[in-house]
Amino acid sequence: MVYLTRLEHFNAAHKLYNPKWSKEQNEAVFGVCANDNWHGHNYDLYVTIKGDPHPDTGFLFDVKELSKLIKIYVIDYLDHKNLNLDVPFMDGKMCSTENLAIAIWNELAAHLPDSVKLHCVKLYETQRIYVEYFG
Amino acid sequence: MVYLTRLEHFNAAHKLYNPKWSKEQNEAVFGVCANDNWHGHNYDLYVTIKGDPHPDTGFLFDVKELSKLIKIYVIDYLDHKNLNLDVPFMDGKMCSTENLAIAIWNELAAHLPDSVKLHCVKLYETQRIYVEYFG
Amino acid sequence: MVYLTRLEHFNAAHKLYNPKWSKEQNEAVFGVCANDNWHGHNYDLYVTIKGDPHPDTGFLFDVKELSKLIKIYVIDYLDHKNLNLDVPFMDGKMCSTENLAIAIWNELAAHLPDSVKLHCVKLYETQRIYVEYFG
Amino acid sequence: MVYLTRLEHFNAAHKLYNPKWSKEQNEAVFGVCANDNWHGHNYDLYVTIKGDPHPDTGFLFDVKELSKLIKIYVIDYLDHKNLNLDVPFMDGKMCSTENLAIAIWNELAAHLPDSVKLHCVKLYETQRIYVEYFG
Amino acid sequence: MVYLTRLEHFNAAHKLYNPKWSKEQNEAVFGVCANDNWHGHNYDLYVTIKGDPHPDTGFLFDVKELSKLIKIYVIDYLDHKNLNLDVPFMDGKMCSTENLAIAIWNELAAHLPDSVKLHCVKLYETQRIYVEYFG
Amino acid sequence: MVYLTRLEHFNAAHKLYNPKWSKEQNEAVFGVCANDNWHGHNYDLYVTIKGDPHPDTGFLFDVKELSKLIKIYVIDYLDHKNLNLDVPFMDGKMCSTENLAIAIWNELAAHLPDSVKLHCVKLYETQRIYVEYFG
Repeated sequence: MVYLTRLEHFNAAHKLYNPKWSKEQNEAVFGVCANDNWHGHNYDLYVTIKGDPHPDTGFLFDVKELSKLIKIYVIDYLDHKNLNLDVPFMDGKMCSTENLAIAIWNELAAHLPDSVKLHCVKLYETQRIYVEYFG
Repeated sequence: MVYLTRLEHFNAAHKLYNPKWSKEQNEAVFGVCANDNWHGHNYDLYVTIKGDPHPDTGFLFDVKELSKLIKIYVIDYLDHKNLNLDVPFMDGKMCSTENLAIAIWNELAAHLPDSVKLHCVKLYETQRIYVEYFG
Repeated sequence: MVYLTRLEHFNAAHKLYNPKWSKEQNEAVFGVCANDNWHGHNYDLYVTIKGDPHPDTGFLFDVKELSKLIKIYVIDYLDHKNLNLDVPFMDGKMCSTENLAIAIWNELAAHLPDSVKLHCVKLYETQRIYVEYFG
Repeated sequence: MVYLTRLEHFNAAHKLYNPKWSKEQNEAVFGVCANDNWHGHNYDLYVTIKGDPHPDTGFLFDVKELSKLIKIYVIDYLDHKNLNLDVPFMDGKMCSTENLAIAIWNELAAHLPDSVKLHCVKLYETQRIYVEYFG
Repeated sequence: MVYLTRLEHFNAAHKLYNPKWSKEQNEAVFGVCANDNWHGHNYDLYVTIKGDPHPDTGFLFDVKELSKLIKIYVIDYLDHKNLNLDVPFMDGKMCSTENLAIAIWNELAAHLPDSVKLHCVKLYETQRIYVEYFG
Repeated sequence: MVYLTRLEHFNAAHKLYNPKWSKEQNEAVFGVCANDNWHGHNYDLYVTIKGDPHPDTGFLFDVKELSKLIKIYVIDYLDHKNLNLDVPFMDGKMCSTENLAIAIWNELAAHLPDSVKLHCVKLYETQRIYVEYFG
């Protein structure tokens, strides 16, 4: 079994706040990440699939096709968007990197063809913070 | 003469839109960057100063002190903020990387001690786009 | 148990084409990667071994020695070569990153000393595409 | 005046050899870079333009438009190609990074609109070797 | 289950030598790393924890808090220090990257709160050499 | 005229302290960098030369030869050394990045062949701090 990973990028705004809490409580827990007027990041998204290379192509899966599928089902919903306001699959969720990685996994798992076996979603929020989810 | 550079980071939300234009005109010019609900970036800021090392220290200027000054006069105003709404020195300006680099230069030039001669502000918006300003 | 990884580099030419297929079929499947006159990459190769550090040295294995072994059994066969034409252990194989990673694993597994337990071969074709193989 | 830089990538095969020289002389001068069957690289191309930001947009020039122009006039001729065999503007030239950077400058200078003032072409052959050309 | 990773840095001096061995034996085994007067590195430390995000915050654990704990229990003991002479938890140990990664794991495992489940310590000595330890 | 740059690495120990000052004064000025028992860094050294490519080779200068010259005259004196104690050309100098960059320039300028015109020495102490010297 071989693991193939593709890196994609998106830029988005978000904030961290719990609507059930007061402004003070949100600021106490989330600090500057709770800024009313949002902040944002350049996210790096690594998607890893696994399986056996096909004898005719040497490919586990065509990586350009994988890139297109990630674009259609994930990047187009996230890039140059507000994660709290603009993204159907983040609706009603806390916009942490953890929850975003899980939501991206769920979108990919639901829409990738059966021939693609998802292994890992790895999401960098900054160069110093990343989350991995294996389903 | 020696050139000394310090890298700092900040994360911010912004959008590109000209308030004198219609929504359609903004979208035609700025595309996804005009998204109503903002998007954001991890900005990398390189500040370069120049001069001669001091014989007692070997330092052009104490780089930790330089880092503090950049933090006080620039990063604290930009990090985890909305560039269009929260930043006094961007008020009324288009929030392009070009204008932001110029504004950062102006803030630093106005507030750095006389012993620090500013040479360049280099600002990455993404890993593939950066602006340099030399005053 | 500890895992120790060493990064090596090589630059090579290759193309993706299946000799059983017509030119049109190859272009339909492999696109620009089927270019008759080849293209090429700077490959990054991460080799991970595992085991327990030796009490006398603190080393799982001497990393400079590991580097030499990777050079002798892998890099010298691949660096500044044509993967389709010049490499005995790729002979008759599709030159995908998947197959190259597997072939590198097989070469290392066959030639590394018994004291080195191979864990992973990770191969970057570009900064956005990599393959991992664990045997 | 502000300087704006855009990074683009291309992957290509090439070899270094002087057709006026013997095989032995080529190998003596160019070593493994003279390999008959080619080798290749992931090239990183930084294109820097200069000028004043426009008051309506804050843009020196639309960076997405710059990216398209680099693609049309440079990347499409180089990406997944053989630099010695496939590239009209390298015809009859030694395929060194130096000559390639100069040729890219000449292509861009000839085809970019008058509103774009080219400042620098910076070309990485590997992470450890790059060339800059300022015209 | 989600995995969250935080990157921290420290700069330190060390040397590799076994006090039971002669100077010649140390040089034979450790080469330039046995230099009497030390050498040093910029170490990159990745700490990975695992668990489930909390529904109120979307956080597995507050990453700023994780950063503080790594600082208090690890970085403050290592940064701008001599690993052989200044670090209580390396006392009497060979200062290899392998042993340092294990020692960092032990410090973190002993001092992190029960709510944080440590998964991996990954330590880069240079950009080409790193060690992982999973306990 | 073309500019050609080569990146080399070295790892070294050093400390910042002025022997004319008391221990307290050194700690007040240099902080943790004055640690008695040294600390260290992975230094990245970029050497830039300038000139015209030769028509027979397309080379400004053979980059492998440049690498060897940097190794012989600079890296071999610095790598796995103590900058304060082991390096003849740093003798009696404050071991700041500024002074080290100037000293490297002086060594290269004195020993490179006449055909190589030195343009810039750029020295990274960490990923966030670098110095440039142009002679």
